[in-house]
Amino acid sequence: MHVLIIGAAGMVGRKLTDALVADGGIGGQAIERLTLVDVIEPSAPAGFTGRVDRIAADLSTPGTSAKLVADRPGMIFHLAAIVSGEAEADFDKGYRINLDGTRELFDAIRLIGDGYKPRIVFTSSIAVFGSPFPQTIPDEFFTTPLTSYGTQKAIGELLLSDYSRRGFFDGIAIRLPTICVRPGRPNKAASGFFSNIIREPLNGEEAVLPVSESVRHWFASPRAAVGFLKDAATLSGDAIGPRRAISMPGLSCTVGDEIEALTRIAGPNVAARIKRVPDPVIIKIVDGWATNFDTRRAHELGFRAEKNFDEIIRAHIEDELGGTFVA
Amino acid sequence: MHVLIIGAAGMVGRKLTDALVADGGIGGQAIERLTLVDVIEPSAPAGFTGRVDRIAADLSTPGTSAKLVADRPGMIFHLAAIVSGEAEADFDKGYRINLDGTRELFDAIRLIGDGYKPRIVFTSSIAVFGSPFPQTIPDEFFTTPLTSYGTQKAIGELLLSDYSRRGFFDGIAIRLPTICVRPGRPNKAASGFFSNIIREPLNGEEAVLPVSESVRHWFASPRAAVGFLKDAATLSGDAIGPRRAISMPGLSCTVGDEIEALTRIAGPNVAARIKRVPDPVIIKIVDGWATNFDTRRAHELGFRAEKNFDEIIRAHIEDELGGTFVA
Repeated sequence: MHVLIIGAAGMVGRKLTDALVADGGIGGQAIERLTLVDVIEPSAPAGFTGRVDRIAADLSTPGTSAKLVADRPGMIFHLAAIVSGEAEADFDKGYRINLDGTRELFDAIRLIGDGYKPRIVFTSSIAVFGSPFPQTIPDEFFTTPLTSYGTQKAIGELLLSDYSRRGFFDGIAIRLPTICVRPGRPNKAASGFFSNIIREPLNGEEAVLPVSESVRHWFASPRAAVGFLKDAATLSGDAIGPRRAISMPGLSCTVGDEIEALTRIAGPNVAARIKRVPDPVIIKIVDGWATNFDTRRAHELGFRAEKNFDEIIRAHIEDELGGTFVA
Repeated sequence: MHVLIIGAAGMVGRKLTDALVADGGIGGQAIERLTLVDVIEPSAPAGFTGRVDRIAADLSTPGTSAKLVADRPGMIFHLAAIVSGEAEADFDKGYRINLDGTRELFDAIRLIGDGYKPRIVFTSSIAVFGSPFPQTIPDEFFTTPLTSYGTQKAIGELLLSDYSRRGFFDGIAIRLPTICVRPGRPNKAASGFFSNIIREPLNGEEAVLPVSESVRHWFASPRAAVGFLKDAATLSGDAIGPRRAISMPGLSCTVGDEIEALTRIAGPNVAARIKRVPDPVIIKIVDGWATNFDTRRAHELGFRAEKNFDEIIRAHIEDELGGTFVA
């Protein structure tokens, strides 16, 4: 099996690569070759004995996608995207990468045209939904994004479904919850605090909480996200059916639930490193976000996320901190 | 007011042009200039004293849209599309005209960039929905098209909403029901019989009914469609809000209801010109179509369709047959 990962240098892409290498195969097939692509050259995965091509490429450059699929990878993960804030700040760049880049990839596969029909897993986002929405968003709720990023993801889903229906490839689009706890340093994303208030205190550092503890949101761990990608890669197209965009399961919980879980696992001294500094701008942004989903279809297809925030914190401590933290 | 109509030579485009000329204005503003565009040169509207430009153009040819909006029309009707069957048969042509052509029009407006912000009315379709659906489709139901045409319309809606949100223009997308009674000769559209069984008998000719009388569908007259377009053109952007794609009202009724209305209005001799010749292919296609919508939003915004099939037949006799028929 030749696996192509586009967006391999990102947080999820690196974790997926490592998981595939550790597994040695996917869906009962050994992985003999990995092609890892991103705007910066992805690092080499440790312990992989097959062929690895690491490519720095811009998906929106004409001809790039054709080169990437010329060797007919049987499985393609398309994780690359300009993120929400940048797609909003730079209209042209967002559409060029997130829409045109995705469409060119899909067309490059289509234009091979000799029966080549890879599985393609496309990461979409809950940003395809726009408020107001019901407290719990069902699988059949309409997509009315309120960002250009969400618009581009919703269009990617539509293209993927149509290209799959026409037999050009066998696609599935998975809408990821907010990934938490994100490893690394705090970033400027409005959603960053959901991770910061867990990650920094476990590192012995202070973190700022800009919203109230009653704020509810929709989470899955990086570990769960990698699980979604691997499960999506091996589902049968018949099981997926013609509706190829699926909201992934997640955990709906409040900031207060996060803090209680942190207190349970790491103690009150750690939780005391969270400083409450209300930020009206972030409060307003977060107020427009979805809080819960009824992901019946994903459950029926076998996707699973964490059941409580304790599990999310434990996954972070195990996967990122070697099992320990600063008490 | 300078009004640009793209798709002006089609059935709805011609009726819209005539209605605007008869009204003399729209939204309280006189129409001084009409630019009529289609792949064939639209005919000149009778009785219009302002400037008329009639242009044969292919929307997907680079630079076409920039020329069409260079004189800054204040109101744009974008009705042009490759129809469902052709978009399915010719993948490239469907995407080139229905997706790229629409996006190039939107971008041509955006790239003027000096505060120019026209109203744009885009005709979408109930083909954005794909079965299975509930018996009555609510406004918040998701769009999972099962044709490339429906996919292209759904993408057009998303682009229109995002470009409107970002202030590049003030758009509204209206999803038209099946237009019935279509004037003209029978065509090969699978939906043609819904009109044929009314139109041909009123002309003294036989018509073939390929499905059972229990088949239910979603209708509006050409007159109602023109009303939707005119109402959409003058709604305030604030009233529309960020969700810019709206299912238009219609009439849900069965083929049996159609025949009963024809019998009431024109007598049993006319209705006896309908010949029942079941066609398994058409029966199967029609079985996948939506049968009813709950168009609450459209009603709140003031859109109105016919309340029974008698009204639809009377509109046809008045508008197409000079008030008479072959008894």
